[in-house]
Formats: sequence, C-alpha cells, structure tokens
Amino acid sequence: MNYELYYWPGIQGRGEFVRLALEDAGTSYRDVARSASGFRRMISMMERGKADRPFAPPFLRAGSLLIAQTANILFYLGPRLGLAPKSEPGRLRLHQLQLTIADWLVEAHDVHHPLGANFYFEQQKRAAKRRAADFRKNRLPKFLGYFEGILRQRPYRPFNYVDLSLFQMLEGLRYAFPNAMKKYEKKHLRLVENHDRVLARPGIAAYLASDRRVAFNRQDIFRHYPELDTEK
Amino acid sequence: MNYELYYWPGIQGRGEFVRLALEDAGTSYRDVARSASGFRRMISMMERGKADRPFAPPFLRAGSLLIAQTANILFYLGPRLGLAPKSEPGRLRLHQLQLTIADWLVEAHDVHHPLGANFYFEQQKRAAKRRAADFRKNRLPKFLGYFEGILRQRPYRPFNYVDLSLFQMLEGLRYAFPNAMKKYEKKHLRLVENHDRVLARPGIAAYLASDRRVAFNRQDIFRHYPELDTEK
Repeated sequence: MNYELYYWPGIQGRGEFVRLALEDAGTSYRDVARSASGFRRMISMMERGKADRPFAPPFLRAGSLLIAQTANILFYLGPRLGLAPKSEPGRLRLHQLQLTIADWLVEAHDVHHPLGANFYFEQQKRAAKRRAADFRKNRLPKFLGYFEGILRQRPYRPFNYVDLSLFQMLEGLRYAFPNAMKKYEKKHLRLVENHDRVLARPGIAAYLASDRRVAFNRQDIFRHYPELDTEK
Repeated sequence: MNYELYYWPGIQGRGEFVRLALEDAGTSYRDVARSASGFRRMISMMERGKADRPFAPPFLRAGSLLIAQTANILFYLGPRLGLAPKSEPGRLRLHQLQLTIADWLVEAHDVHHPLGANFYFEQQKRAAKRRAADFRKNRLPKFLGYFEGILRQRPYRPFNYVDLSLFQMLEGLRYAFPNAMKKYEKKHLRLVENHDRVLARPGIAAYLASDRRVAFNRQDIFRHYPELDTEK
C-alpha cells in the first residue's frame, strides 16, 4: 500500500502521531504537503462542496480510502503496521487510550490558546497564565498518573502505536513545560522508560536523525513560553 | 446483549450521544449511575490501580468488554444497533464524522470554561465573553457549514448514529445560543431537517417524553448564559 499523509508543513502537530507509526514500521509513505504543489493539493481537498472532504488535517490516502482524524487513522493503520492487535476488543482498547491522549493534547494546546486559535498568544497571555497554572497543578499530573497506571499493565501488551504516542506526549511536554516535567518525571518512571525504549527503536532513531523530523517551534501544538512554566 | 451505560447523573453531557443511539434502536440497557449504588459503582470502576480503568465517563459494559470514550462506544454499537454499516470503510467514515462532532462539542463547552473546569464560570466570565464572541462568529458557522455539506450527501447514506448526534448538537446549541442559532439555522436547512426527522422517530419521541431525558441545565456541557449569546 502506498500511503499518502496530508498535514500542515512546518510543525509536528497531530500529523506526528501518524508519522511515528509509519516511520517505526518502516513503511514507505509520502508526506504530501511538504512540497508546494502537495500543499495546494491538500488545501483543494478540503474545499467546500467536495464529497468526503475532511474537516482538518491530518488525513491519510490509503488506496481508495481517505481517512481523517488522527486517532481514526491510527485505528486503521495499527493492525496493518503490526502496531495493534487484529481482534476488535484489542483495537477498541488501544483506540480508547489514543482518544484519551487526543483529549490530553487539546488541553496542552489550550494552555497557550485558552480563548481560541483566532487570537494571538499575546492577546490572551493573562488567560493563558491562569489556565497554565491549573494545567500544571491539576490536569498534567492527572493524565500522567493515568498513563503511568496503563503502562504498569505492560506485561500483558505487545508494543503498539499508543506507546509511540506516549513517547510523543513526553517529547512535547518536556519541550513546553521543562520545569513542571522535571518534577513530575520522577514519579512517572514507566512513562520515562517507555520514552527511552521508543528512542532506541531503529525506525524511530533513523527518523529523529533525519530532516523529516521538524523541530518543535512556536507555531506548534506544544509551545514553550517561560511564563507558562513557572514554579507556582 | 445487556448493555450497561455509566455516566454522570443529572446532566445529558457526553452520555447523551450514547443514550440516543440505544433509545432509537429500542435496545434494553441500564443507565447504571442514575441510582446511588450505581453511582458508587461507577466511581469505584475509575479508581487508581484498577486494570483497564477508564479515564472518564461515559463507559459501556457490553458482556466482558468495558468500552470508554463516546465515539469509541458508538463505533462499537453502530453496526450492532443497525445505526452504522458493517463494512470497515463505512464505519471509519462515520467515526471520522463523530470525532469531528466531539471536537465541536469541546469547543461548545470551552466557551463557558475557557480557563478549564477547575474554575467556576464566575471566575472566568471575562475570558468566556471573548471566547464566546469568536465561537459565535467563526467556529460555530465553520462546523455548521461542514455538517450541512455532509448532509447534502445524504442520498448515499442510510440513517445512522451521526444523524442522532447532529440532532443532539442542534438541541444543545439552540439551548445555549438561541440568538446565534436563530440567525444560522436559516442557512443550514438540512441540519434543521435532520433534527426534525430525528424528533419524529418513534424511539426518540418516546425517550424525549420520558423522565429518562434530563433537561438541559447549568451543570451540563451546553449552558445558556445570556452574556455569551449577545448580538455582536
């Protein structure tokens, strides 16, 4: 299967969760919107009136299928890439975890954009500081604790795309909230161990060393603003 | 199959999307947490250390399966209730739409809680007014327009759980933003028509007339605050 991934160029964003699965499996795929003509094609596929147009990137072309929504794409790819079981209960279980990661990601984004994406950060810095304090104190440890518990059950699960997504969450959170994460990582050693294990996988190591991996930056979902990662 | 639904009592919330599917299909199910003992059971199922504990309600017990995340539950139930095709492409397609509805729902919630659920509305009213203005002007018409386009393709699709969820979105948005919706409904007639069609379905009509349907209120995801539904 020749997969075509469509996602905003210049950021990791939600596309990265799909990329990590494709790269770990060593599957050949085209990251279409990285070229100017591919970018125009992505935009045209989202135009009003087009049948089956996706609401937003990422989306994946797989033969005659056009699949949007990150978790939905991973649900489809999982068993095909050897990153999920083939049975329905196993697939539903992983998907449930991936959807919880998606919720977590929205909250990590909304820390710097609590009033919405149509305002600049500078226009909502005050609101962002309040939301950030609550995120660091309450929401972040709640999600970390939940997934630490999930990884505690690891002996019963083979490696899968949720492990890759948890790696990416740790990558992003370390970039955005280095102070908070330094404190929390000590209590969530299985998440750290999972991160290190993913780093050592050949497909991932090659990907991270390549220019296909975009660096974190202030256009991305995870953003580092020192004022949102203070001590109190 | 004897389904058991677990969700916060006293609100429609995310549980309502599952309830509408079960009620439309005329399936027998228990809304467990409506009783005091059932509520305690729901809380105990989310306790730390429990294997496979869900992050949050709703979740569904279906035989030996415990399935969380609203869209995941509907993905499972869809073909079993006759509310989704059985083929994988058809299921993925509906699921993609349901996940986009889930994104829309988060934004409808965040209008009144832009700083997060750990602050009262009164503590974030100023931020809420700014987010509400952007939601009414930009985000609401974007989502409405997207799903209006989806319904335009209706001839190719049998009735399904996404139609039920779109009914519920219109119900909630009419309650929360009556002024904005009065204006927008004129341009989104297929969404209104879908709403009326769902209203007339026997299972739904019986459900809405019963005391199983909780009224909208200010603890729910959709909330009516007149200051968030002004003209400008």
